[in-house]
Amino acid sequence: MIEHATRGRRALHLVDAQGDFDADKVAAAIAVALDTDPAGLQDALDGELAADLADALTRLGPRQQAAMLALIAADERALVFGYLPLKLQTALAAGMSRPAVLELFDLMSADERVDLFNTLPPDRRERLLPALAQAEREDIRRLASYPRDSVGALMTSEYATLTPELTAGEAIAELRRVAPDKETIYNAYVIDHDRRLVGVATLRRLILAAPDMPVSEVMASDPVTVFVDADQYEAASKIARYDFIALPVIDRERRIVGIVTADDAMDVAEAEATEDFHKAGGSLGTLTVSMKDAGIGLLYRQRVFWLVLLVFANLFSGAGIAHFEDLIAANLALVFFLPLLIASGGNAGAQSATLMVRAIATGDVEMRDWAGMLGREFIVSTLLGLTMALAVSAIGLFRGGPEIAIVVATTMLLIVLVGSVMGMSLPFLLSRFRADPASASSPLITSLADGVGILIYFGIATVMLSWLGQPA
Amino acid sequence: MIEHATRGRRALHLVDAQGDFDADKVAAAIAVALDTDPAGLQDALDGELAADLADALTRLGPRQQAAMLALIAADERALVFGYLPLKLQTALAAGMSRPAVLELFDLMSADERVDLFNTLPPDRRERLLPALAQAEREDIRRLASYPRDSVGALMTSEYATLTPELTAGEAIAELRRVAPDKETIYNAYVIDHDRRLVGVATLRRLILAAPDMPVSEVMASDPVTVFVDADQYEAASKIARYDFIALPVIDRERRIVGIVTADDAMDVAEAEATEDFHKAGGSLGTLTVSMKDAGIGLLYRQRVFWLVLLVFANLFSGAGIAHFEDLIAANLALVFFLPLLIASGGNAGAQSATLMVRAIATGDVEMRDWAGMLGREFIVSTLLGLTMALAVSAIGLFRGGPEIAIVVATTMLLIVLVGSVMGMSLPFLLSRFRADPASASSPLITSLADGVGILIYFGIATVMLSWLGQPA
Repeated sequence: MIEHATRGRRALHLVDAQGDFDADKVAAAIAVALDTDPAGLQDALDGELAADLADALTRLGPRQQAAMLALIAADERALVFGYLPLKLQTALAAGMSRPAVLELFDLMSADERVDLFNTLPPDRRERLLPALAQAEREDIRRLASYPRDSVGALMTSEYATLTPELTAGEAIAELRRVAPDKETIYNAYVIDHDRRLVGVATLRRLILAAPDMPVSEVMASDPVTVFVDADQYEAASKIARYDFIALPVIDRERRIVGIVTADDAMDVAEAEATEDFHKAGGSLGTLTVSMKDAGIGLLYRQRVFWLVLLVFANLFSGAGIAHFEDLIAANLALVFFLPLLIASGGNAGAQSATLMVRAIATGDVEMRDWAGMLGREFIVSTLLGLTMALAVSAIGLFRGGPEIAIVVATTMLLIVLVGSVMGMSLPFLLSRFRADPASASSPLITSLADGVGILIYFGIATVMLSWLGQPA
Repeated sequence: MIEHATRGRRALHLVDAQGDFDADKVAAAIAVALDTDPAGLQDALDGELAADLADALTRLGPRQQAAMLALIAADERALVFGYLPLKLQTALAAGMSRPAVLELFDLMSADERVDLFNTLPPDRRERLLPALAQAEREDIRRLASYPRDSVGALMTSEYATLTPELTAGEAIAELRRVAPDKETIYNAYVIDHDRRLVGVATLRRLILAAPDMPVSEVMASDPVTVFVDADQYEAASKIARYDFIALPVIDRERRIVGIVTADDAMDVAEAEATEDFHKAGGSLGTLTVSMKDAGIGLLYRQRVFWLVLLVFANLFSGAGIAHFEDLIAANLALVFFLPLLIASGGNAGAQSATLMVRAIATGDVEMRDWAGMLGREFIVSTLLGLTMALAVSAIGLFRGGPEIAIVVATTMLLIVLVGSVMGMSLPFLLSRFRADPASASSPLITSLADGVGILIYFGIATVMLSWLGQPA
């Protein structure tokens, strides 16, 4: 829902000095009022926004939640449900009577209704369906049929349609008539007799137009659309790109089948960013539930894959060390600098990788920018490497003498350079081979940089220490 | 702007089979048409959306950009400017005549105009100001006076106001009158004679109301607002929380001074996610310009701070190793497992840290959830640690015999446990001490885990190998 913009909201007299809602305090006050003054509470709740009520509700115990919901008017209750985590919606619905659930389903918006329906146990779904109005039943069946990440599973069927022959005045009257059942009337979708989308008329343009002007002249023809089987992210990025309030969804015959609203697009964009974030930290980016509610099994599965995989990547580092065992035995001082040097390569690499992954995800950088950016990365990482080499050579001088200082400074420069270029390039390479660039996680880059760093370090040490007349 | 929802967009006949815009192809076609058929191109451009035109424009050379802009109608050109990167806007404005810049300023939306104005060289600003209409001049001065990250620097002054005595019918007529100059007329702000905000009336409600009903009865009183000096992120999160189209901005006297629109809120949310992403990778999260356009100096400054700081953190790891030099000399096989073990602690820690940082940023998890999550993290990381210990003990058995296998397996379990708990707790601790939880970056966690891992590894080795009768 993008319409219910505002309501009075100080009725509970619990917003803070900034006028902001404090869910904890409100929940505590509700818990008290449920026992002492239910009638007063009912009035107070009436003035609050659904998002706030939902927030307060999640902070109550199960019995209080049910009691609070009972005090909220049915249409508002349906709105509150839409803001609750799905898991809680399911739990609350399980405790409600059949008529209450039917009323809730009737009043919820179509997209939220089908989400709740999908989480109900199969036997309950079977029993509910026949009791629903036919239109709702068909709507639920249709929306429930789309794959989880598709636009179809995100869209709502509550959009307003117009026909091109209507006048602007008639169109406004029509929108007024259907408004109560629609998510938005600010965009109306103009369809031909086959329900094919021929244009979009904004309420703004309809209001500005002469009342007798036909909708076909007011509307923008050939609008931006998204296919019902496309990825949800495509709908979200189109809405963000064009600053739309809503985006029409069409099937392969260009018939309109739904709309995606800007608020839902914002949620998708946030979920997508979260997924990338999780991947950047080396988890599988599949955690769509709240972190707070995530089960132990889910968290384990999300994390174990990369952890174990990286054990094998790190074996190469171990093998690298084993290869240089004699060098190390002869120069134990080298081991002192090992963590420092290889970590720096990983750190520089993690920096470039995350900068790149994000830039690719936001569309800021594309495949064809690689060559240009590689050149710049060389310069930046050389400067970074020189700074780091300077810092570490002082320590080297102090810890191991001038020979060690030269070895560690040279190694640092090279390691930072190689780590950075690797970190910058891997997201591009992944993207090139149609893999997710976000898989170039910090742990992966760090592990790769460790292995390469060990080879560079001990390789340089072998060569340099023999040059410099040290035993190597 | 959130209004110009759709226009015809196939005029250039270059959208692909999906109906999507291919900026590269369109740019190439424009480049050709500029020479061969400017009149035809002018017609074609007329049908395209501003966001698409801006996207194509960025792919042209400077001279072609100017030529293309000249073919676009003045009002559309102002829209296109709003979608261009600021740096390019400034460059293009520098090449434009004074009357052309004045026309552009006149037609741009207030928030985008002031952003451009702020990037112009001071002498040019001085010369421009007197030529602007007084209202625009004052508006620019006022908007330019707000600090960079404040709501004031994000908001626009083009909102529609109503007075409470108007009837719904009069209000609609008024909105119709002012619509051309307003960012949105879907939310109208009801003010008293001191410009204090008393309510918000949505166009939907105004249209649904009886024409003679006063605005004071249609409007929602006591609306959600944001202060002009608040952080932009606050405006963005309120818009996301309540699914608003626009949010009114007030000063400390509750006078309305502007509105923030949902599309701008979406941009802020994206920028905020990018900042957190950069921090997670161990960069300073201050890169507000495009990665593609970022200068070498900026990239260097953004990355050098943490890199050098972490060198010193890693010194402790080196010192740890030096402390166990004799143990290492006697058991060189231990070094083989060093990178593997300490990297695993860092990897597990980076996973938990990013999961937590993101959960805190999205509001999914709060300070008070720490204790509960710590318990769960113990269980999850013990399971992860056992899995990893199993994997590594097989390698230990093969490489160094049963004693080494026991040492590395025990170490792995402990390191993964400690790394995870550290990674999970650091964001909370930072948040507790009012620092940014996103500073718990993967490189920081990795470096900390390295140090702790070395102590655990060699500590366990010292104890166990002497128990098991090995020289230690």
